[in-house]
Amino acid sequence: MTPSDIPALLARIAAEDGAIGSFWQVDRDGALAARAATAGPLDGVAIGIKDNVDVAGLRTTAGIAAFRHRVADRDAPVVRRLRDAGLVILGKTAMHEGALGATTDTPGFGRCMNPLRAGYTPGGSSGGSGAAVAAGFVPLAIGTDTMGSVRLPAAYCGVIGLKPTSGLVSRTGVVPLSPRLDHVGILAATVEGAALALEVMAGDDPEDPDSRPAPPGWRALTAQPANPRGLRIGLPEAVLAAPMEPAIRTALEEAQTRLRDAGALLVPVAVPGWDLTATRRAGLLLIEAEAAALHPTLVDDPEAATPGFRAALAYGRDANGARIAKALFRLAEARAGALRALDQCDLLLMPTAPQRAFTHGTPAPVDQADFTALANVAGLPAIALPWAAADGGLPCSIQIVGRAHTEQAVCALADWLVRAR
Amino acid sequence: MTPSDIPALLARIAAEDGAIGSFWQVDRDGALAARAATAGPLDGVAIGIKDNVDVAGLRTTAGIAAFRHRVADRDAPVVRRLRDAGLVILGKTAMHEGALGATTDTPGFGRCMNPLRAGYTPGGSSGGSGAAVAAGFVPLAIGTDTMGSVRLPAAYCGVIGLKPTSGLVSRTGVVPLSPRLDHVGILAATVEGAALALEVMAGDDPEDPDSRPAPPGWRALTAQPANPRGLRIGLPEAVLAAPMEPAIRTALEEAQTRLRDAGALLVPVAVPGWDLTATRRAGLLLIEAEAAALHPTLVDDPEAATPGFRAALAYGRDANGARIAKALFRLAEARAGALRALDQCDLLLMPTAPQRAFTHGTPAPVDQADFTALANVAGLPAIALPWAAADGGLPCSIQIVGRAHTEQAVCALADWLVRAR
Repeated sequence: MTPSDIPALLARIAAEDGAIGSFWQVDRDGALAARAATAGPLDGVAIGIKDNVDVAGLRTTAGIAAFRHRVADRDAPVVRRLRDAGLVILGKTAMHEGALGATTDTPGFGRCMNPLRAGYTPGGSSGGSGAAVAAGFVPLAIGTDTMGSVRLPAAYCGVIGLKPTSGLVSRTGVVPLSPRLDHVGILAATVEGAALALEVMAGDDPEDPDSRPAPPGWRALTAQPANPRGLRIGLPEAVLAAPMEPAIRTALEEAQTRLRDAGALLVPVAVPGWDLTATRRAGLLLIEAEAAALHPTLVDDPEAATPGFRAALAYGRDANGARIAKALFRLAEARAGALRALDQCDLLLMPTAPQRAFTHGTPAPVDQADFTALANVAGLPAIALPWAAADGGLPCSIQIVGRAHTEQAVCALADWLVRAR
Repeated sequence: MTPSDIPALLARIAAEDGAIGSFWQVDRDGALAARAATAGPLDGVAIGIKDNVDVAGLRTTAGIAAFRHRVADRDAPVVRRLRDAGLVILGKTAMHEGALGATTDTPGFGRCMNPLRAGYTPGGSSGGSGAAVAAGFVPLAIGTDTMGSVRLPAAYCGVIGLKPTSGLVSRTGVVPLSPRLDHVGILAATVEGAALALEVMAGDDPEDPDSRPAPPGWRALTAQPANPRGLRIGLPEAVLAAPMEPAIRTALEEAQTRLRDAGALLVPVAVPGWDLTATRRAGLLLIEAEAAALHPTLVDDPEAATPGFRAALAYGRDANGARIAKALFRLAEARAGALRALDQCDLLLMPTAPQRAFTHGTPAPVDQADFTALANVAGLPAIALPWAAADGGLPCSIQIVGRAHTEQAVCALADWLVRAR
C-alpha cells in the first residue's frame, strides 16, 4: 500500500472530525514522530485503534466512565506488531460503551456520526473505526468483534470488515467483554488492506489462553481475486427466511447472480442448530455473564457506567447456572451446525446485517447481529464487503464466512465481489 | 480377538456376579440368540454396556431412581455400531448414580465390588464396566467419562480404559451429564481390544451436535507397540508436585525408567492454566449446571434421586452467571495449557489417579479425578493402563494423553508400556 501523508490526514481529522467524532484521542505528536522504515507493504500507512485496545501512553477507556482516565503503560501485542510493521497510529477511535451495543452513541464520550449521512449511526461497537475509514482519515482501523462489532460498522459505513478465525490474533491488552466470543479484527478501505493488516496482526501469544499459532503456510492476502468457477457457495436457509430490508435482499440476489454467472454453484444449506433469535440471545446472555465476571466492580457502582450497561451485566451475573448452561448448549449447537454446513460447501454467503444504517435516536433493531453472531460462535473467519444499493441509498453489505483459517479464500472471494459489483 | 464362549460367560456371571454386582441387567436370551457373522475382528466377542447407554429392550437407568423403569426403544448409535460389528451384548453394567461420582455405591441399585479385593470400590462412575472386565465376565465394556469415569474404574480394577478425542464417538442415546465434557469410552482387558472397539465405535452422528467425522486415515489400532526411541514425553509439573500414594509415585518412576532406557526423552512440562484443584472444581460446577439444565425435574423431587445427587444439581442450577463464567474461563485456560504443553512434546505421561482403590464406606478422596479431568476439558485422547504395584498390593495405573485424534500413538505407547512392565 502507499504510505499515508500523515500531516495531511491529521489536518483533515482536525478540520472534519469535529462533525463526525470518529477519534476520541489523536496522537498528533506520536504520529508525526513515527519513523518506521521496514520496507514492508504497510510501512508508513496510517491506522486507527479502537479505544478498548492498549496503545502505550494513550487512554484505554472502552467507552466506560470508570475507565475514563486509564492510560496504557504498554502496547497490546497486536498494536506492537502493527508498529513493528511500520504502521503509524493516528489515535484511538470511538466505540459503543464497553463494546456492548452497535450504535456508538456513548454517553459521556460522544455520539459518532456516519460519514455517509449526517445524523446516522456508523454502527458499532467499532463505530469510530468504521467512520474513520469511511471518512478517509485512515485506510485501516482496528476493531473488536464479539457478535459482529467489526462487520456491522463496516456494513453501515460501506467499508471492509474482517473478523479472523478464533485464536489467530491476540486479545492481550484488549478490554475483554466475552473471552469466549471476543475477536480482534480490522476495518479497511480495501480487501487488500484488510488482508495485509491481518497478516501483520496474526501471531501466537501465550498470554492469551485462546491464542494458537497459525497453521503452517497460513496467509490472508491473495495474489489475485478468486475465480468463482466451481466454488460451492452455501446460502444459509435461516438467513434466506429471515426478515430483511428489501434493498438488502436485492443486494444478496445481485451478488448471487454475479457469482452464478461466473460459474459458482449457489446452494441453500441448512445450518442445523442455528436459530437466529435463540443463538443471538444465548450469545448475549453468555457475554453479559462473562463481562460481569470480568468487571464485577462496574455492576453496582452507579458512577462506573450507564444504567443500561450495568443492568446488562447484572442480568448476566444473576442468571442462574441452568440458564447459562442452556445458552452454552445453544451456542454449541449453532457452532456444530456451522461446521456441518461448511462440510457441504466451500463458503457461506449472506448479508452482513438485515438493514442499513439508521438514524441516531431510533431504537436499535434487535436483530442487528443476527447474521454476524454465527462466525463468532463458531470461531470462523468472516468478511463484510460493501454492495452499492440498487435504490441509490446507503450501501448494503455482503458477508462471506469460511472454514477455520481460510482467510485467504474468504478475502479472495470478497475481492472478486467488490470488483464484480 | 477370539470369539467369546457366551454360554460359559453367562454361567460365570450367574455364579459369581452376585458377590460383585457388576451387571444390573443380564440379557441372557439376547446374548445367546446373537448370531453375527461379520468376519470382523470383534465378531462374537462379548461386551457389557454401562447402564446410561441405550440398548433396545433393556432398561437405561443411569442409576437414578426416577429412571428405574425406563426401557430404551432403540439402540444408541454407538451400540448399533457394536452390534453391526458382531459384538455380543451380555447386559447393562453398574454405575455411580447419574455418572456423578466414582465409587459405584448406588443406593437402590447396589454396591459394586472390586473383583481384585472384597469390600473395595471398583471406582466409577463406570464401576460395573471395570469390574466386569476385571472379573473376566467380558473382555470389553462401554463406559462414559466426564472427568475420568472410564479411566478411574480402569485404574482401580487393573484394566485398560480409553477415552477418545471429543466428537469421535456419538453420545446420542446416552443419558447426558455434561455435553461439554461427556465422552463415551471403552474398558478392556487389552490395549488391542480397546483400540479395536474404538475403531468400531467411532463415527459421525449428526444427531450429536459435538460429533465430527474422524480425520481421513484415522486409526486406533497399531500393527505393533510403539518404539519409544526419540519420543518426547512430557511430565506435567503440576502432577509431579501433587500429593499421591507412594506406590503410585513409584509406578510413575518405574514407567519413566523403562521409557528412558528405551530411548524416550522424558521432560517436565508446564501446563499453563491447569491448577488441579481449581480445574476440577470448575469442571464439577459446569457439570452440575449442565446436568441441572438437562434434568430439571430431578432436582426438586425427593423421590427422583438421592439427596446428594439432587443437591449437586441444585448447586449448579443456583450458581450465578458470573460464577459459571469464571468456571468457563478456568476450563478454557486449562484446555489452552494442555494444547500448549503438547506443542512441546508428543505425549503426556502421568498417573491415572493419585491413589489406588479404597474400601467402600471410606469417604471418596476429593482429588480422585485431578489427573483425569484435563483430557475431558481439552477434548484429548487418554488411556489408562495397569501397572503392578511394587508393594504387591492393588495395581497402580499410568495415564497417557495425546494430541487430538492421535489414538493410534496413545494406544501404541500404552501397549509398549504394558509389555515393558
